[in-house]
Amino acid sequence: MKTRDRILKTALALFNESGEAGVSLAQIAAALDISEGNLWYHFRTKRDLIAALLDELEQTIEQQHERPPADPGNVSTYADYSRQCFRTMWAYRFLYRARFDPGKDRELAERRLAITVRGHHHSERHLTEMARCKLLDASPSEIAELVTADRIVSRYWFDYLQERYGLVQLSEADLQSGVKQIFALYRPYLSAAARAQIAAAMPPGRKAARR
Amino acid sequence: MKTRDRILKTALALFNESGEAGVSLAQIAAALDISEGNLWYHFRTKRDLIAALLDELEQTIEQQHERPPADPGNVSTYADYSRQCFRTMWAYRFLYRARFDPGKDRELAERRLAITVRGHHHSERHLTEMARCKLLDASPSEIAELVTADRIVSRYWFDYLQERYGLVQLSEADLQSGVKQIFALYRPYLSAAARAQIAAAMPPGRKAARR
Repeated sequence: MKTRDRILKTALALFNESGEAGVSLAQIAAALDISEGNLWYHFRTKRDLIAALLDELEQTIEQQHERPPADPGNVSTYADYSRQCFRTMWAYRFLYRARFDPGKDRELAERRLAITVRGHHHSERHLTEMARCKLLDASPSEIAELVTADRIVSRYWFDYLQERYGLVQLSEADLQSGVKQIFALYRPYLSAAARAQIAAAMPPGRKAARR
Repeated sequence: MKTRDRILKTALALFNESGEAGVSLAQIAAALDISEGNLWYHFRTKRDLIAALLDELEQTIEQQHERPPADPGNVSTYADYSRQCFRTMWAYRFLYRARFDPGKDRELAERRLAITVRGHHHSERHLTEMARCKLLDASPSEIAELVTADRIVSRYWFDYLQERYGLVQLSEADLQSGVKQIFALYRPYLSAAARAQIAAAMPPGRKAARR
């Protein structure tokens, strides 16, 4: 791995652990066992490092959003997207916790806001697509409300788990329960076809248990 | 107003504005135009001030929770509670933003957690009561999911408005849209009786507009 990439990886891990305000460039250099001069050669300030990690997050989201839905007529496509969205937020969680003050750093604040707005539009597109594919039986105003609920539950799922249960490490179960909670929002509006897909996708053990 | 109460009021306003980490005892004394010695006579540390404001919040919540629902068979009772809950969270918003590390201050962290757990139980009681009064047609597992969604949307409503729209001051409209968003979660499960109550409570102008 190139030094620049190693720096970014280590900075991300430390920022996620302690918040970007609690980590100094010296600590990052020490964790990498490189000199501060070497670090400085790649990134002059902590702000440069944060901006580079924001680049990474933007590119990850871009790739996820550009890929057309694997199978728009199947609910599992939307569950997969939700799972992927949780993974991305967890991987870059310090960027979701940080508050960029537009008065102090307008560029970072605007880029961070753009991510929020994009996520909203992406949810909107997905729920509209689900309605178009007759998976969801909801009016445009119901879809608008669902989008807001979906965004809030997705966005703050980890904060909720942390505040309520002291989450420090994401388990597969936490991720699954997040997707389940999102689908609980959709459920009243799911069509018979969508419900049948979900029942068919359930592991045999659980299906038997529900009989 | 007694000096102690004036100090608490000013500290709360400053903490809400800048976060408790960004405000010093000296700044609080200056804002009150009293000496630091006078402030110190009432509160030795910032931690004492935070603990006293947490007392206030606990008492406010206690009073709200102890009062029996005004009219348990009427949905407006639950809308009123939701509105009140938003007002309390807004009034003490710094305590909802702060992260008390149990490793650093176990007492504050535990008291803060107790507030979260209590809110959850209170939502649970309310939704169960709505089902008992035939306002809600939901199974116990649906109620459990609704409680979680309700808690997340309530708890993070202001964070969402801030992140998405740059909210700095709460307007009545923001509060109303929060209550509306909570009721959007309930809506698929509301009984015909509950829907009739909501339609009857709607202002005449809006009823006419919907015809």
